[in-house]
Amino acid sequence: MFSPTPRFAPLPGYASPGPGSVTLPAGYRAAGVHAGIKRSRRDLGILVSDVAVVSAVFFTSNSAAAAPVLVTRDTCDCTALQAVVVNSGIANACTGRQGHVDALRMRALAAAELGLPLEKVAVSSTGVMGDPLPMDIIEKGIHRVAGKLAADGGEHFAAAIRTTDRTEKRVGLTVETSGGEIHIGFASKGAGMVSPNMATTLSFVTTDAAVPAVAWHEMMAHALAESFNRITVDGQESTNDMVLGFANGASGVPLDDDGLERVHEALCAGLLAMALGVVADGEGATKTVRLRVSGAHDSREAERVARAIANSPLVKAAVFGHDANWGRIVQAAGMWLSHDDPRPLACDVAYDDLELVHGGDPLPLDVAATERLERVMTAPELDLQVELRRGSAATLVYFSDLTYDYVRLNAGRRT
Amino acid sequence: MFSPTPRFAPLPGYASPGPGSVTLPAGYRAAGVHAGIKRSRRDLGILVSDVAVVSAVFFTSNSAAAAPVLVTRDTCDCTALQAVVVNSGIANACTGRQGHVDALRMRALAAAELGLPLEKVAVSSTGVMGDPLPMDIIEKGIHRVAGKLAADGGEHFAAAIRTTDRTEKRVGLTVETSGGEIHIGFASKGAGMVSPNMATTLSFVTTDAAVPAVAWHEMMAHALAESFNRITVDGQESTNDMVLGFANGASGVPLDDDGLERVHEALCAGLLAMALGVVADGEGATKTVRLRVSGAHDSREAERVARAIANSPLVKAAVFGHDANWGRIVQAAGMWLSHDDPRPLACDVAYDDLELVHGGDPLPLDVAATERLERVMTAPELDLQVELRRGSAATLVYFSDLTYDYVRLNAGRRT
Repeated sequence: MFSPTPRFAPLPGYASPGPGSVTLPAGYRAAGVHAGIKRSRRDLGILVSDVAVVSAVFFTSNSAAAAPVLVTRDTCDCTALQAVVVNSGIANACTGRQGHVDALRMRALAAAELGLPLEKVAVSSTGVMGDPLPMDIIEKGIHRVAGKLAADGGEHFAAAIRTTDRTEKRVGLTVETSGGEIHIGFASKGAGMVSPNMATTLSFVTTDAAVPAVAWHEMMAHALAESFNRITVDGQESTNDMVLGFANGASGVPLDDDGLERVHEALCAGLLAMALGVVADGEGATKTVRLRVSGAHDSREAERVARAIANSPLVKAAVFGHDANWGRIVQAAGMWLSHDDPRPLACDVAYDDLELVHGGDPLPLDVAATERLERVMTAPELDLQVELRRGSAATLVYFSDLTYDYVRLNAGRRT
Repeated sequence: MFSPTPRFAPLPGYASPGPGSVTLPAGYRAAGVHAGIKRSRRDLGILVSDVAVVSAVFFTSNSAAAAPVLVTRDTCDCTALQAVVVNSGIANACTGRQGHVDALRMRALAAAELGLPLEKVAVSSTGVMGDPLPMDIIEKGIHRVAGKLAADGGEHFAAAIRTTDRTEKRVGLTVETSGGEIHIGFASKGAGMVSPNMATTLSFVTTDAAVPAVAWHEMMAHALAESFNRITVDGQESTNDMVLGFANGASGVPLDDDGLERVHEALCAGLLAMALGVVADGEGATKTVRLRVSGAHDSREAERVARAIANSPLVKAAVFGHDANWGRIVQAAGMWLSHDDPRPLACDVAYDDLELVHGGDPLPLDVAATERLERVMTAPELDLQVELRRGSAATLVYFSDLTYDYVRLNAGRRT
């Protein structure tokens, strides 16, 4: 079961009966099979609602967006999608005109199997960039996976979207409302090419709550802004990012404003758990750092400084080496501040509640503080605070460390 | 002897008698000693001109600039510097008010030994950030190194400025002019924290040519723009960067416009060789890639895309793994283009003269081309070309790969 970030993304107050997944909510079926794109693991999945759906979908802003992103974004009915077909192993990215043809065909095959109009079916891919989809395998696979769709298939679906992920990322939440129980299910993948700029992963959300289309889009957008848009593994925005949420109302539970707010809260909590699962499972990662940058002149500056620190290979390697190295943190912050304001930087830096730099001056650490810092730096989750003393804007970013395994994963195989 | 980039930075046509260095030109003395900041290597150096000098100096734009940068920039006579005292091992960066006091004292000690006014002596440091300078060691060391100043001390000086550098970076060029021979000497350090944004290393240049102050500043600025501002190892701009050039006229050779142009050419060639030496010696680096981005809408876009590719850990790890991986190149380019223009990217990508992507479509490689690509990717120097097909702006950036050793160097010790 998935619970990589007990400290930063707790999920208290939600009952999750059995293996939580996108098929915990009523009215959804899913499946995932090994079609043969990857050597031995599940690599092709379908998720479908049996009833009409309100949907909200968010895409990468990378202008080299992959074919399935373009097909879904430009030719689907994005507020009323009813199904998604997704493969892992090959991203169908940087595949030119042939890739576009293949994505259209993949969608058409799934729509035919499901008996749905083309524009109701999203198509999504993740995996190696630059290689063509093996369409013979996809075609046979879509037929097989459609035949296995089941109301308890969420686990297999979640398995089918994994690439270099070490863990499956899925959870199902049960939410009590005055009108009765509703459910929200999540399945995500993501390990490398993760940066806080628009959706940065594949992530699928289902609920049997009845949520009006506009409200669902707003809820999803807000939950994304506070989760997937706040994480970075390597500062790389993928060509294939897609976050897709379905709300089919199959619970039959009437929701008042308070009920909708509970759905919203659970959506935020679940997506944050997913996002932090991605950071904790960042390629080669051993640690998650929650970085709060405060005292920035404006929110743009806060964001730039936070990303500069979170994406600095020097800071990330230091975290891997259990080294608090405030010098690298200040250096990374100063690199970007210089573009906005030439004043010398005199910031505060703290790991957890242990202040290391105050107004630009390093603080002497006594023996007890040194020992405490060593303990802090060996924990799997670290709180890093940087106060810039230039204004009142702040932001929060979660990032992972840079390790030998990141290099091994990305030098050793094409992804 | 230093010659890491035979293909990208050849130095033909220049005679370099003996061990070329900053003391090849007439009228300079230098020394480098082991003062004791580092365990066993030389770590403290002085370089001085025996006669009045025209100087030009360029600093990091990082707003967390180190104390020696602030002291030199804000309190020296930067167009008439006559000497520099420099230590390695401790950067005196992120050291707050005490660091400022220490940098002032380091300069005062050197000025007293040299019998020069304070404002004629630059001070420079490189090494670990966040730790204070050991001033007792510095004080004794400055007395010792001043006693060893010699007209053939350039080699020891170059050794004293090394940090994680695997090689010494120094060269001396002899330039024929109609009035006689003049000389230019170079000593540089740099391995990590290197990004094309202002000077990104410590680099010291000496010449015995007589160059007017304004012309020397222009020559140095131009040579920097085409060398140290075009390289990246890890996208990190240092707190301590300084490039300092002395022109003391001690050759006595009169220079006409043609002679000045020859000095300018040699300065550019030498600084490019230094800069590419830094890339080739990037922390853990095994390869140098020369990336040309063309067809950009404007020069800002060309620069952003080039840096996005050159700093992508995915691209860099692929280069380490001998993988041409055009998908990651296109992805990195698209990540930044999206901010400027929403049109889908349909670019060309080539390694050497082997085109891999044409108008966004990957090209099929036959057996001969595949074998050729394998040979290209195993070479120590690679030419990568990305044509964006959006306009006519272009730029050039040199970068290194991301390797296990980068992580080892930066996780294993504080730098």
